[in-house]
Amino acid sequence: MADITRRTLLAGSALAAAAGIPPGSAAATAPAAGRQFAGVYRYKVGDYELTALYDGVWNLPIDETFVRNAAFADVRKALNDVFLPPDTLPIPFTTLVVNTGSKLVLLDTGTGGQLIGTAGSMGSNLAAAGIDPKAIDVIVISHFHPDHINGLKTKDDEVVFPNAEVNVPAPEWDYWMDDGTMSTAPDRIKRYFLNVRRVFGSIAKDVRRYAPGQEVAPGIATIPAFGHTPGHCAFVVASGSQQMLALSDITNHPWLFVRHPEWQAVIDMDGAMAVKSRRKLLDRAAADRMQVQGYHFPFPACGHIARADAGYDFVPVMWQPTL
Amino acid sequence: MADITRRTLLAGSALAAAAGIPPGSAAATAPAAGRQFAGVYRYKVGDYELTALYDGVWNLPIDETFVRNAAFADVRKALNDVFLPPDTLPIPFTTLVVNTGSKLVLLDTGTGGQLIGTAGSMGSNLAAAGIDPKAIDVIVISHFHPDHINGLKTKDDEVVFPNAEVNVPAPEWDYWMDDGTMSTAPDRIKRYFLNVRRVFGSIAKDVRRYAPGQEVAPGIATIPAFGHTPGHCAFVVASGSQQMLALSDITNHPWLFVRHPEWQAVIDMDGAMAVKSRRKLLDRAAADRMQVQGYHFPFPACGHIARADAGYDFVPVMWQPTL
Repeated sequence: MADITRRTLLAGSALAAAAGIPPGSAAATAPAAGRQFAGVYRYKVGDYELTALYDGVWNLPIDETFVRNAAFADVRKALNDVFLPPDTLPIPFTTLVVNTGSKLVLLDTGTGGQLIGTAGSMGSNLAAAGIDPKAIDVIVISHFHPDHINGLKTKDDEVVFPNAEVNVPAPEWDYWMDDGTMSTAPDRIKRYFLNVRRVFGSIAKDVRRYAPGQEVAPGIATIPAFGHTPGHCAFVVASGSQQMLALSDITNHPWLFVRHPEWQAVIDMDGAMAVKSRRKLLDRAAADRMQVQGYHFPFPACGHIARADAGYDFVPVMWQPTL
Repeated sequence: MADITRRTLLAGSALAAAAGIPPGSAAATAPAAGRQFAGVYRYKVGDYELTALYDGVWNLPIDETFVRNAAFADVRKALNDVFLPPDTLPIPFTTLVVNTGSKLVLLDTGTGGQLIGTAGSMGSNLAAAGIDPKAIDVIVISHFHPDHINGLKTKDDEVVFPNAEVNVPAPEWDYWMDDGTMSTAPDRIKRYFLNVRRVFGSIAKDVRRYAPGQEVAPGIATIPAFGHTPGHCAFVVASGSQQMLALSDITNHPWLFVRHPEWQAVIDMDGAMAVKSRRKLLDRAAADRMQVQGYHFPFPACGHIARADAGYDFVPVMWQPTL
């Protein structure tokens, strides 16, 4: 039933012989790309055009200390259930540019390639999306963990977005810039204080501190969502009749903390408060069937939140061919 | 707490006035892209480099006839549960290029832009991936529905992949090329027969008919999976110790037919046989925790199959920054 075509015969005999290729083998016809394609996804919220930019992933080895209030066997099972390795949590990073028509607003800035070798692609993906860093008008920071602020600066302390107004949560600034608080912090936290000073030190006078709840750009409101850090904020992007909830770090990986919202990650500074903020925003997203964006959700990191069992499910958006 | 920076003051007064812009407004700083970014995703299976290419989506209005053996209320609920509209099924298309190192093998060819306005981007995504259609060595077709074969030709009957050996399932060829069968087919099926003749007519003598189960290229085996059409095939791509199961149309949209494998879509020509083939392959994927690719799964259309309740769940792969 399998016909041999003229082309196959030629390739297998005359042509191949002419090229010095043994019958049955073939020259490589196209080089492998050898690297991932750009991670860029666009969608609309009302009249606004949003661009999700993938910054990469941190494959974090975890043990029984990672979730404070769950048995490690349960954490491993949750990872195994979604075909992830049981001892390594792949934490992805996705930043978001909102084009309001009059402003280019960037929500968080990625790792700046200063955290781990497998992250730092936000800059090249910004370029792939055709956006010049000089064109960013406004930056809104959710909180001061390094994977959210390091992209503001190169590792040589150069400003990456020279024309952007940088907005940060006032209580976050007050906490991390307080020398007294830093002096009493344990070493694993103290490095965050030092990093905040490195990133903001030379631009401190130009940084705009916003009150959580305040609108920071047209149609972009901030929402207090404390617990993960003392001043951690989420965002609502609204245009026309549509709105989208950017969850920031209200959860880390959804397959762990959307499904098990009561679990407290060791990186949630106040675990109980983080759970309270998490339930409040996930409840709102589920009840209102809002589109959401999650900083540590799998790229393109947008979708919806559905109630499921004791927790919730993250339902990724279907990649659309048009806006 | 919200500081006004020097930059904000300037933008709101002197600079803006100089540019003739009213205070409080701003010039558009970057044009919206206005269209989706390229849909290309790469991953490895052993030494092989695979490239998933998004061809777009068919937003198909559906009614109570779409699933033969389920109440339409249940179908609507299944769509509503995953935040899809209740009367329109967005059916995505994703083709796959396998670079074996010596051959570029294309599994199915997309709609060729000949089905619906929202599909036909496979060609531009192939270009974005840096792959010349002339470099495709081998094409393997799963079955003869137009969204799988139309990409072989332009609508003006030009061959799109001039150097490719075209492999088709022998029983599929025998069925659709039989004039007697065509003569007794109802009109809604007859158009498929006519389309098959349009696509294959002028190249018929060069088409290689494979026996389902046969290996058609190095490391690419075909698997009989009849029911959706009489000769429908799935594929296993194997390299080194890894393998991946390309499910072809063993299900249409996973949120309907992976979750409810017993549901028979009206587009499954033999519904009962399609369900039997579906259970067999989904069981294999779940039991072996195989990575899968689904032609009608949301882009990038790869992930895993988990057993869940009476059916299965599709767990999309996490977008990886590296191969």
